[in-house]
Formats: sequence, structure tokens, C-alpha cells
Amino acid sequence: MMEFTALSQIASLADTLPVADSAAREAALARQNSLTKPPGSLGRLEELAIFMAGWRATARPVIKKAQAVVFAGNHGICAQGVNPYPQEVTKQMVANFEHGGASINQLCRANGAALSVVALDLDTPTADFTQGPAMTEAETLEAMTRGAAAVDPTADVLILGEMGIGNSTIAAALASALFGATPAEWVGPGTGSDAEGIARKIAAIEAGLARHGGLSAMETLAALGGREQAAICGAVLAARAAHIPVILDGFICTAAAAVLYAADPRLLDHCLVGHASAEPGHRRLLAAIGQKPVLEFDMRLGEGSGAALALGILRAALEVHNGMATFGEAGVSDK
Amino acid sequence: MMEFTALSQIASLADTLPVADSAAREAALARQNSLTKPPGSLGRLEELAIFMAGWRATARPVIKKAQAVVFAGNHGICAQGVNPYPQEVTKQMVANFEHGGASINQLCRANGAALSVVALDLDTPTADFTQGPAMTEAETLEAMTRGAAAVDPTADVLILGEMGIGNSTIAAALASALFGATPAEWVGPGTGSDAEGIARKIAAIEAGLARHGGLSAMETLAALGGREQAAICGAVLAARAAHIPVILDGFICTAAAAVLYAADPRLLDHCLVGHASAEPGHRRLLAAIGQKPVLEFDMRLGEGSGAALALGILRAALEVHNGMATFGEAGVSDK
Repeated sequence: MMEFTALSQIASLADTLPVADSAAREAALARQNSLTKPPGSLGRLEELAIFMAGWRATARPVIKKAQAVVFAGNHGICAQGVNPYPQEVTKQMVANFEHGGASINQLCRANGAALSVVALDLDTPTADFTQGPAMTEAETLEAMTRGAAAVDPTADVLILGEMGIGNSTIAAALASALFGATPAEWVGPGTGSDAEGIARKIAAIEAGLARHGGLSAMETLAALGGREQAAICGAVLAARAAHIPVILDGFICTAAAAVLYAADPRLLDHCLVGHASAEPGHRRLLAAIGQKPVLEFDMRLGEGSGAALALGILRAALEVHNGMATFGEAGVSDK
Repeated sequence: MMEFTALSQIASLADTLPVADSAAREAALARQNSLTKPPGSLGRLEELAIFMAGWRATARPVIKKAQAVVFAGNHGICAQGVNPYPQEVTKQMVANFEHGGASINQLCRANGAALSVVALDLDTPTADFTQGPAMTEAETLEAMTRGAAAVDPTADVLILGEMGIGNSTIAAALASALFGATPAEWVGPGTGSDAEGIARKIAAIEAGLARHGGLSAMETLAALGGREQAAICGAVLAARAAHIPVILDGFICTAAAAVLYAADPRLLDHCLVGHASAEPGHRRLLAAIGQKPVLEFDMRLGEGSGAALALGILRAALEVHNGMATFGEAGVSDK
């Protein structure tokens, strides 16, 4: 199991973690070009199959086991009135996940993913980052280790999602601290803030940035992040160690993983982003980390919903890659 | 069974064919707004569920049976050198469909659609439209009737696709005749034409348009279209009569159905377009008929591949719609 003992050591993991198998990628590309279709005519589906080939280190990758994990946390920043829903909703939604009633349950069932939910100390919110660091280094490392422990090392692909009232403010704070641009450029309505609520979000983030400057990416995670953000970072790293490609979800999930990108861009090489969220900061963030989303569906729910939807596309890409006949097999004339 | 006896009578079918059930749409919208998520936060997935509710006339639509039909035809316009592949490839690809080796087979299996392939007189290509009308009225009506006959009236959704060497030229010719803009603005590489091939496509279409002006939409189908285009029109109309929503595919399939739109826009009210093709004319065509594609994946294969991929999304939308708990059921606090 992956354990994290110091935030200062995370960035250097990029030097030791596995990389994509280039021979498998090339073999997968050669196969795509031999299938009964004009070369390149399946566009993004071809790219997805080749991506999977590289990370699974085989020319014919399959998804036998897909795992989805939703991490939930609570946030001291809610004291600043950044979310119109009461903070108990985090726990209520965790119960909803456990009883199968949420969006992510249906999307996991529809696309064949096993869902686990990890509630991270919901009764002990992180500290209000306008008053001090949200988490200590020890709290951050513990949440990262719990995130890593949630990863099934036998999975073929990992879907990540989150739930946490107030965490669109956390995401905008992290994004602004890591990639510049003002809080106002990163903040959106989240679960449904009006103009006043958005102004409170911006003010809270400005106060947080003023208090916590000059930090490394991982220190920023501790200062402004939350447990579910740290857990996502831990899960992304554990998946990489096990050669498991990851599908990230929307703005909040991507902002969490983007901490790793800011520490070393190579740490997200095995990650896709499932969709471009309607939350306005997401497109800016995707540009900052050089990711092209799989889907664009105007979704803004979180929970891993966009990532789980993208899993269906990834499955289809591999069905095509593995199941199609070559020109030779089918007796179809090439040009 | 739907039979077509005169091209002049098609447009007026818009007055008698079924329309979406607005009470079912409203009930589906009310359900969406009661589910445990911020209202609207599932974006396009919500729209798709409500669309299905209207056409299936129930607040909780399901897809028990999904049908995919690929229509194949051959085209006299190939005499003008508009395609780098030999015309026998149409028949070879039909055999590939029948043996399960093509892209559409894998995508139908991945997304649970039953595939039928209808080869339309492949040994008798339509006439070269630079020399005269591609089809007589009788040939056009016969192909439309065969298209309608292929529709399973017990299906819950219909995916349409096509195969026919040379038919991206047919699509560009139809689009230019129906919606204006020059042939050069509608023509793209298709299965892989180079600059010279594209120039031959443009020249052929210019000659066709010069020969066949001042026609109604349905007469244009006969003059410039092919059997698979006519069959797609027939299938779209038969699906409408049976309250079956349709997922159209890329440029060629959409251009075929767009003949009906040009005859009367209401005739496509029950149709989605599964994806925006990389074939450049498709986006222009989607704008002309007011359609927003489900997916954007840089695909340009035809066969119904983009429509079949979108079926998976539609299934996911209905799983969410039918399976999620309401705020009341889950005991989750609303704002």
C-alpha cells in the first residue's frame, strides 16, 4: 500500500512512478490502422484505445473491472456562507450513495463500474482557510493515504468523484493559487449560488490567498484544500503505481488532481478528464493542465458523474479496438 | 406498413404524423427537478430524458429494444472519380457488417442495439447525376418504402446509418441544393480524398446542380440522392408513425434526413443527431437544420457509428432519470 509521509516528497514521485508502454501504444496504433475503416476515422475513440494500451501495457487492453470511488469531506470555509445548502447535505448524500439513489449509482450501473464511497471525517470539517491552514500536513497526508488505500489494484480503470458542500469554493481557491488568474475568474455558481453567494465565495478565496502565499503545490493543498481533495491526489498516485488509468470528473475533482500537475505535470499523464463541466472555471482549468475532456454535456453535479458517463465511451472504444476485423480478415479492398 | 406513392405527398405528412406528448414531457421535467441533484445539473442528460418522455409518451421512458439499421447503396456518380476506394467496397463492407467485423457491429453490441443491414440493389448503381436524375420517382419511392419496412415498430429507439462508396458526394450535393452555399463549402475528404479528389467532387456537384435546378426537396432527393438516402427518409417517417425517436448519424445520414427537414422541418422533430462528424460539412448542416449533436468525437466513419455511440449516452440518461431517488425519498435537505 502507498503511504505518504511528507508533502515535500510528492513531486519527486514523478521520477519513479511507471510511464506508459510505448511499444504497446505503437502496436495499438498499428492495429487501428489495419481495421476496416479509413485510418483515423474513429477520431477520439482511436485515441482512447491507444491511451489505454499504453497504460495497461498491452496492444489489446480490456476493461474487466472498473472501479469508481467517491470521496466526501466537509469544509470549514462554509462558515463564510459560500454554499446555499446546509453542510449536513454531505452526510445525507453519502447515505444516498450507499442506498443507491444518487446519480453516480445509476451511471456506475449503466456503465459497469463498482462504486465505493469514502466519507472522510464528515463530523470534523477542515479549518476555515480564511483563518488559518485548512489542514495540517499530517491531516493532509492521512487523507492522501486513505485515498490511496481506496484504490483496488486489480482494477483496469479508476473513476474518481467527490461530494462536499462548499467544495466548489475549495476548487476555485486551489486553481487560483496554483495557476494564477483572480478568484472571480475561477468562481461559478457551484450547487446553485446566486450573485451574492458568488461574491461571498470570491471574498473568502481572496482572504485565503492573502493569508497563504508563497507555498509549494502540495503545501497549497494543505492550506486551502480539503480531505476529499487530498484523497483524490492519493488515489491518482496509487492508481499510477498500479498502472491503472484514471478518469477524473469535473471542476472540483480536476482541481484536486491539478495540485499534482502543479507539483509535476507528469503525475497526471495517466489521467483523462471525463467531461467539461458547466461550472465556468473548468474550461480554464482544463487549458491550464493541457487536458481535452472526453464529453461536453453541460453537467455540473460532481460525484464522478461525468467520469462515469465517459467510462461507457471508453468501453465502446475498446470494443471497437478489439472486436473489429482487419482489412485482411474481412477481405475488404484498401485504397 | 408505410408505403409511399408520390413524392409530392411527403411534405404534408407533417400535418398527420404524431407529435411529442407534452404532458409526458412536463411530468418528466417535474421528476428531474425532484431528483437528488441541483436542478439542471445533469445538463444534456436531463434534456435527453425529457425528449424520450415526449416521444414515448410516458414520464418514465425505457429502452427495452434498440434497433440499428444500416442502409447500403451504390452511386453512378462514382464514374466521375469522386472516391479513392473501388465501388465493390460497398458490397464488401455489407459482408463485413453481416459477419460482425465492422465498427458498427462492435458499437451496437457495446450499447445493446440489434443491427440489421439493408443492401439496396448494389449491383445496379443509381444514375450519374451529372448526366440525368440519379433515380426515377418510382425508384425513389421504392427505396423509401424499403426503408420504412426495415423499421421494427416495437423498438423504443432507432439508430440509422449508411454505407455507400461515393455517398459523401451525394450528401454534399443534397445539402448544397437544399440549403444553398457552394459545393466547395459542403465538400470534405470523405473516406480519404486528396485535394484532386475533392476538386473532382466539387466539379461533379456543380454539374449536378446546374442540371437539376428548381426542384422541390423530395424531387431533389430523386435527382441527386441515392437509394440509401431515400431509405433513410422512409425509415425516419415510419419511426415517427410508430412514436419511435431516431438517432441520426453523421454528415451523410443527416443530409439524407435533411431532405425531409427541407420538405417540412417538423418531420425531424423526433430525431437527434448522435454526433458532429469531422467531415466539415456536417456542422454547417447541423446549423441549417437546428440540431445540436449529442457527441463531438472527431469521427467520420458513417455506418451509424456516431449514432450507436450516442445510444449509450441515451441509455445512461434514462437510467439516471428512472433510477435516482427524489429529495423526499432520500431524506436529503433541499436548499
